[in-house]
Amino acid sequence: MMKIFAVGLGPGNSTLMAPMAASAIEQSDVIVGYTSYMELIPELLAGKRTISTGMRGEVERCQEAIDEALLGNTVAVVCSGDSGIYGMAGLLFQLAEAYPEIEIVVVPGITAAIAAAALLGSPLTNDFAVISLSDHLTPWTTIKSRLEAVSQTDMVICLYNPQSKTRSDYLSRACKIMLRHKPADTACGYVRNAFRGDDSTIKLCLLGELADEPVDMLTTVIIGNSFTSVINNKLVTARGYQV
Amino acid sequence: MMKIFAVGLGPGNSTLMAPMAASAIEQSDVIVGYTSYMELIPELLAGKRTISTGMRGEVERCQEAIDEALLGNTVAVVCSGDSGIYGMAGLLFQLAEAYPEIEIVVVPGITAAIAAAALLGSPLTNDFAVISLSDHLTPWTTIKSRLEAVSQTDMVICLYNPQSKTRSDYLSRACKIMLRHKPADTACGYVRNAFRGDDSTIKLCLLGELADEPVDMLTTVIIGNSFTSVINNKLVTARGYQV
Repeated sequence: MMKIFAVGLGPGNSTLMAPMAASAIEQSDVIVGYTSYMELIPELLAGKRTISTGMRGEVERCQEAIDEALLGNTVAVVCSGDSGIYGMAGLLFQLAEAYPEIEIVVVPGITAAIAAAALLGSPLTNDFAVISLSDHLTPWTTIKSRLEAVSQTDMVICLYNPQSKTRSDYLSRACKIMLRHKPADTACGYVRNAFRGDDSTIKLCLLGELADEPVDMLTTVIIGNSFTSVINNKLVTARGYQV
Repeated sequence: MMKIFAVGLGPGNSTLMAPMAASAIEQSDVIVGYTSYMELIPELLAGKRTISTGMRGEVERCQEAIDEALLGNTVAVVCSGDSGIYGMAGLLFQLAEAYPEIEIVVVPGITAAIAAAALLGSPLTNDFAVISLSDHLTPWTTIKSRLEAVSQTDMVICLYNPQSKTRSDYLSRACKIMLRHKPADTACGYVRNAFRGDDSTIKLCLLGELADEPVDMLTTVIIGNSFTSVINNKLVTARGYQV
């Protein structure tokens, strides 16, 4: 049986990787992934053949995984977080369409929204939207209309890829849109390098201040709704229980 | 130090529980949770004092956890999935507001959206919204406006608590709203008892058929967007890569 595991490693801390993920990697002959994800799991790669590529090598990386599977190898394609959320799983299914003999197994992982929320407190207690601000693969007009729609209906919003060196004003643009519908004193927070030890940054702020915060591609931003407040220095969305 | 862990157990399969969750339970003197969640982890409860309650005992359960922590016990409050997503973490922070001396640590878990998506294929590859159809704690008018907003902007939608015995037409109501903005042939899927062995149901269908499907409170439903299709029997949302 030809098999590819699309494996989510979680936030990058071995205590938050599912045992099923470690087991999938152990069962695989070849491990494929973006270089910085491979660096998260050195002990699991011992004795394995590895294929690593830099950013934006996504199509080539998945194609190589398929080629290896067609040769009879069991392959693990590793992603940080969950492989299905802005990860490689979807692309693997697309590229392998002509090869139904390859079984693609998605091994779920803890995505950045969940990891960041846990460190901030409990901001995702009620309905929320996950939106990437990267317009590399989605037009900005679409991103904008989504931000508008979820802000208007008082949803909590979690932003992935909030800005990069070449998109240095994207969080600021998003804040302008959200501020049309959410008050400037809406409680927010962001986490950089969630659960990666001393490198983690965890910060609370108000929506009116968020545009000026130093966020990058390794940061996950959460914008509360009208039920979100700061309780003992944690970001908490209430869900309507009588307390 | 007074400490409460709000622990997400994941979908209910030990191979998908983070090692950090097992470790938090091991460190705790008292384990608090809804009876059916406690049944997921019998081996971790050996020798522990446990406090379990039925559904809708949420406030009492969290209050008991706080009382135990104030007595000096380390307490784990366990939830299925992630404790911050429609779970107990938010309520714990609210109820413990007057006791800043209690440290509340959220241990993240794999939520139902991620588990269901993995079994269906890769439907959450791009922006998505998570919405609960339960109007026990959120007014139906709010739920309705959120469904409307996210459907209009072509987001993938993941529904929690789609219907119960007393809310037997809620999925049908939601489908009517989504069908105003999404075509009837939009690819969808649902999973009941994700990763719980032989009890799992995994099914694909079209949005036009979804209202008649037999879903319940243990089912997670995912409605695709205009980039979602069925590839080799898997539900896949494309993200815009040139393939």
